[in-house]
Amino acid sequence: MKPLGPIPAGYCAKDGELAIGGMTASELVERAGGTPCFIYSKAHLDRRVADLRSAMPRRLGINYAVKANPFAPVIAHMAGLVDGFDIASAGELAMVQAAGIDPARVSFAGPGKRDVELDAAIRAGVTLNCESEGEARRALAIGEKLGVRPRMAIRVNPDFEIKGSGMKMGGGAKPFGVDAERVAALAREVIAAGAEWRGLHIFTGSQALSAEAIIEAQANVLSCAERLSQEIGVTLPKLNMGGGFGIPYFHGDAPLDIVAVGRALAERFDHLPDALAETELCIELGRYLVGEAGVYLARIVDRKESHGVTYLVTDGGLHHQLAASGNFGTVVRRNYPVAIATRFDAEPTEEANVVGCLCTPLDRLADAAHLPRADVGDLVAVFCAGAYGATASPASFLGHGPAAELLV
Amino acid sequence: MKPLGPIPAGYCAKDGELAIGGMTASELVERAGGTPCFIYSKAHLDRRVADLRSAMPRRLGINYAVKANPFAPVIAHMAGLVDGFDIASAGELAMVQAAGIDPARVSFAGPGKRDVELDAAIRAGVTLNCESEGEARRALAIGEKLGVRPRMAIRVNPDFEIKGSGMKMGGGAKPFGVDAERVAALAREVIAAGAEWRGLHIFTGSQALSAEAIIEAQANVLSCAERLSQEIGVTLPKLNMGGGFGIPYFHGDAPLDIVAVGRALAERFDHLPDALAETELCIELGRYLVGEAGVYLARIVDRKESHGVTYLVTDGGLHHQLAASGNFGTVVRRNYPVAIATRFDAEPTEEANVVGCLCTPLDRLADAAHLPRADVGDLVAVFCAGAYGATASPASFLGHGPAAELLV
Repeated sequence: MKPLGPIPAGYCAKDGELAIGGMTASELVERAGGTPCFIYSKAHLDRRVADLRSAMPRRLGINYAVKANPFAPVIAHMAGLVDGFDIASAGELAMVQAAGIDPARVSFAGPGKRDVELDAAIRAGVTLNCESEGEARRALAIGEKLGVRPRMAIRVNPDFEIKGSGMKMGGGAKPFGVDAERVAALAREVIAAGAEWRGLHIFTGSQALSAEAIIEAQANVLSCAERLSQEIGVTLPKLNMGGGFGIPYFHGDAPLDIVAVGRALAERFDHLPDALAETELCIELGRYLVGEAGVYLARIVDRKESHGVTYLVTDGGLHHQLAASGNFGTVVRRNYPVAIATRFDAEPTEEANVVGCLCTPLDRLADAAHLPRADVGDLVAVFCAGAYGATASPASFLGHGPAAELLV
Repeated sequence: MKPLGPIPAGYCAKDGELAIGGMTASELVERAGGTPCFIYSKAHLDRRVADLRSAMPRRLGINYAVKANPFAPVIAHMAGLVDGFDIASAGELAMVQAAGIDPARVSFAGPGKRDVELDAAIRAGVTLNCESEGEARRALAIGEKLGVRPRMAIRVNPDFEIKGSGMKMGGGAKPFGVDAERVAALAREVIAAGAEWRGLHIFTGSQALSAEAIIEAQANVLSCAERLSQEIGVTLPKLNMGGGFGIPYFHGDAPLDIVAVGRALAERFDHLPDALAETELCIELGRYLVGEAGVYLARIVDRKESHGVTYLVTDGGLHHQLAASGNFGTVVRRNYPVAIATRFDAEPTEEANVVGCLCTPLDRLADAAHLPRADVGDLVAVFCAGAYGATASPASFLGHGPAAELLV
């Protein structure tokens, strides 16, 4: 038996089934148009942002990183909840524009911005988080050609990272941002060239569950920003402090203590150095905001035995849930939180492997899981499916096509 | 410095650039409509199948596993080269039907076939490789309801696998096929129910580069089929012997010796047991047929330094080349064959990291590669991109969209 990850708070049973937004899994599937499908919960999104607001200092802006979940109704719903949006491509720019989001609330980071993307972003008035000297100069040239003053920030490759975020501590070579020691020179060049100076973006890691590690990283970010602001010699209008807030996926993971993070940040904000006194401060979160608000539902198509092992074969799989299958940045596969959605309040009685419908041994949703006995027709729920699910999976693989998505 | 994988045979320079089908990389990109793009070579496909035909016994049919590359022009081209097609979903069924392929040449394997898929396949007259008793009974019921006699084979979960194909040797529990000891009973049930009996499908592994391992697996497949045919008590009309022929991706990989495989198979075919004397025999290959015929081209968007390391940032990435990035069924990332396509005959002079445009450290195309000096605007080629590239990658991730595809 292998343990399953923890089911996020806020999911309960109705008529014996997993319910979201007052509807049972079966009702949700019908409304989505069939399985497999992703169900995202507005109530979850609202509660998550409200909890975060109450934990964080009021001064801290909260941005949504669209790449975590760019489903149009999710973007539109987040527009009423967060202060800003971070995008990573011209495609995501089109998405936030379609949602009617003011480009002044949007910043664009990403190491491989093409000229056509810079052009679209500058025309729209989005802030560019420049990743290199070369990119900054291309942006300035495009702005000049367009007769538009580009809004420019610099993404810093800092000499530190969030401990425990799966990345090594300490400065290192990265394709992202400008090495800290070259930032001031570039900032002065950008300002002198007439760009609208929008400050710094310092991203230090992702998916951290340790409050202590995030507190330390945020302290380092503020020190780094102070130092760079003084080097630049111009007030920092804005500082994007990055994100890194993780969610529990696996057995033994505990939720991040955001109250502790917020308390530490509030103390720092009370004693900000002069260089940052007027700076607009924000964090950018993707997974933390939407990850637990999404559930992936697939139907059991076959129940079979092989050499004494029970397989529940679903119509879903890694083409929608690559990370849950253990094939996206994972070395050792562990089980996500998984349940039989149509027997949500039943006791587990057997050990089964839940697999997808793809013809590859990589397509696993839960290994040796302790579950209530399920049959063909039952629905399987994979939790923590709200971030990096639908769009971070190879939806065209084997021709099954994308999953339906529904925000309720 | 980390070694690059071996560039497949048949690629050469023209005017200093990588050329495919007589066109330079720059010309191909223009024809494809821009970067990033996949270029597939008809000449490569033709030569590969011709070499295989000349190495294998004439009696052996060669099937194409569509999942390796379902690009419509590739399917259409393969229709003139191979004997049969293996599909894995109703989506792939629609693709082979769109290419005008006779459904009698098509078989359908996959552990999670939904009723609507069985329905479509039975109506079309495709052979179902049944993966379980439950699925076989559903197919029989659907056939009866439709008044159509289903064509049914059984996929066997054998008690052996190809050595060195990255899977453990020896029988084991699998979501694929029916355990060998239960096959005869199910076959008799299917035949008694009036289905058109199409024989067995025995798949033993994939991506093997050892001729010895494949020869041994094929011998085991023939023995297994003989034994099962005798147990069933009815002549075996057809035997799909599976595939497993690998291609070299990484430094140190040597091409599979297909001449040795063909020679051993010819000897076996000369002494087939009576039970298989009249059986139609075939292998199914995906990656081996199309993998080396495809090249992924991306353009360098930025050239930057970070702490002494050179990064070539391209407009491509893991959203089209998940396997090359090391994030698809790989534990230790190694470099695929990668080259600067626009300086294809230049000597390597520097060490560089080639990365994609996505905002994630997972997006790596070549680590510490020895390459000619390349600049913004140069094209990067990733070889071995013809199989499990475009459709086996998360094309929607970060909103950059799919790559163009072109068969020349």
